[in-house]
Amino acid sequence: MQLLLDKIISRAKVDAILFVSWENIRYLCGFSGSDGALIVTSQERTFLTDSRYEEQARGEIQNAAVKRYRNKISGLTQFLKALHIKRLGFESNAMAYEDYRKLKEKLTRVSFIPLAQEISKLRVRKEPEELEKIRRAVHIASVSFIDTLSRIRTGVREKSVAEFLEYRMKRRGGDKLAFDTIVASGPRAALPHGAASAKRLQKRDTVVIDFGTSYRGYHSDETKTLILGQPDAEKRKVYEIVRRAQGKALKTIRPGVSFRQIDAAAREVISRAGYGKFFGHGTGHGVGLAIHEAPSISPQGRGVAEEGMVFTVEPGIYIPGWGGVRLEDMVWVTGRGCEKLTVLSKDLEENILAR
Amino acid sequence: MQLLLDKIISRAKVDAILFVSWENIRYLCGFSGSDGALIVTSQERTFLTDSRYEEQARGEIQNAAVKRYRNKISGLTQFLKALHIKRLGFESNAMAYEDYRKLKEKLTRVSFIPLAQEISKLRVRKEPEELEKIRRAVHIASVSFIDTLSRIRTGVREKSVAEFLEYRMKRRGGDKLAFDTIVASGPRAALPHGAASAKRLQKRDTVVIDFGTSYRGYHSDETKTLILGQPDAEKRKVYEIVRRAQGKALKTIRPGVSFRQIDAAAREVISRAGYGKFFGHGTGHGVGLAIHEAPSISPQGRGVAEEGMVFTVEPGIYIPGWGGVRLEDMVWVTGRGCEKLTVLSKDLEENILAR
Repeated sequence: MQLLLDKIISRAKVDAILFVSWENIRYLCGFSGSDGALIVTSQERTFLTDSRYEEQARGEIQNAAVKRYRNKISGLTQFLKALHIKRLGFESNAMAYEDYRKLKEKLTRVSFIPLAQEISKLRVRKEPEELEKIRRAVHIASVSFIDTLSRIRTGVREKSVAEFLEYRMKRRGGDKLAFDTIVASGPRAALPHGAASAKRLQKRDTVVIDFGTSYRGYHSDETKTLILGQPDAEKRKVYEIVRRAQGKALKTIRPGVSFRQIDAAAREVISRAGYGKFFGHGTGHGVGLAIHEAPSISPQGRGVAEEGMVFTVEPGIYIPGWGGVRLEDMVWVTGRGCEKLTVLSKDLEENILAR
Repeated sequence: MQLLLDKIISRAKVDAILFVSWENIRYLCGFSGSDGALIVTSQERTFLTDSRYEEQARGEIQNAAVKRYRNKISGLTQFLKALHIKRLGFESNAMAYEDYRKLKEKLTRVSFIPLAQEISKLRVRKEPEELEKIRRAVHIASVSFIDTLSRIRTGVREKSVAEFLEYRMKRRGGDKLAFDTIVASGPRAALPHGAASAKRLQKRDTVVIDFGTSYRGYHSDETKTLILGQPDAEKRKVYEIVRRAQGKALKTIRPGVSFRQIDAAAREVISRAGYGKFFGHGTGHGVGLAIHEAPSISPQGRGVAEEGMVFTVEPGIYIPGWGGVRLEDMVWVTGRGCEKLTVLSKDLEENILAR
């Protein structure tokens, strides 16, 4: 890990990198709280935080010195001055402009070098220990979904489904929700991010359920689309198109294949079937310490799949007024292809609830 | 509201303001999703988002035009170019440096004016409808705490307490957790932000429980410190000092009193009792659409209390190895003083669990 950091440091010709996102801080030094900053040079690592987190930091961090500040900006300023930094790399995707402005105002002799792409690649290939935590998160979410299945029936509110699923994920050992659970039924399924509402499930609704938890900081992310009662011809057709699109993308994945190719594989199936304009989002995104992280599997995605990457494959069709279908699995890129990490079936017949 | 915005626009001499935080977007146009941008001029408001949120935005937003982009940065660039903006104010506390950098690179003729303080004041005085939502959130959290009380006993894990409390808050109508519930018992109570762990509650533990939910976007925030079994003299003493510190701060609050005075009122009680170095954080923070927002009630806090503000009063004493006590209530500043919004008792005798 220090190797990768040293590479970034030497390529960007900086004396130190300032990390402020909790994900990179956790990744690099193990601190699991939510406020502080980590400063890395090729020689040393120092984590700075306030009194709320000092004791926790001293308990959790092995590979960095821990220092306490009263005020973040002045604490960082003082420390960076003492280090005699000339060029400071910083996590420009995570640092607010205002914090940058305040630091720059106080450190007039320091050049600030924004590092975005370079840093987003830091966590992109998962170590075996990380993969294990992701698998644990997926497992917790899957069994919790199965716990919840018996409660999904006509008359129940979307919110109640979400509440119970979230409670089970917590009970079964999830740290916290990966995101607000989506339960979007009937016409609401046309909202790709339809938070669970007070709407009751109705006969013949399609129900898009997008859910995830985390385990020791690592996330799961999966989407099932259930159909209440026998689907009519159009529902069946739309579901099968999304299913084929997903299968096509999954088959495309192996080291060296570009993210655009993976996205195009899914998109082509949907477009050829005439539903292209109803699939407005990207095909997938990386998952790890952040629920959305690099890489981006989309028409604008840059780069190619590499062994050890973990990302989602989640095409969807959303038709305003009618409803929608999204199917989402998580995969891990292996030496020759990919392995699905999620286990719940996405076959249509397995997702028809006849009650 | 447009009045306040017009003031900011004219004082900062900008042609438009770009909002990117979900809190200000929700406040200004009612959109409750989590991605998009709002551009406000003195003439018009436009909300821009991607296809995932377009339908939701059209359903929720009454007072702004809705436009869809494929890519956020290029979508915003295109729109701002068409508006012929010369000076663009932006939410510098919320916008990542990287987004600023990309926009600036594309909009070479535009001057970017960071607006932080000005914008943080926008939501600081709560309207009656906002106060009602905060009260609802507080109510949901309070009754959920009472639901949970019977489960708090020796042998139970901190995590189980948190899980049940969180489940009840959801069941009773909370939108989502305000933050990860803190349940910190025994020596762990010395961690001001000790997330609930697998530790079991033990006889004579003090248990700091900091919890909150939200209702239609507005948050509650409250901390109780329970004592399992009869407290010894030192626990009693520390609890009572924190209680007096809180009482003193509460009595100080009225329009015109500075945040520093309010903080000092609590801090003095704790310092005089000899525990000053064990109270390392500020006395309180504003609560509303964000769980932490302006004002800051701390030694560095700037400004004075104004009618309609809502904030917490939460002194604490944290002694490494021994444990800690924090008591937190939310108040609403009235014309002549303040009204407590939280209702659960902070009296020592009411917080001793003798089982």
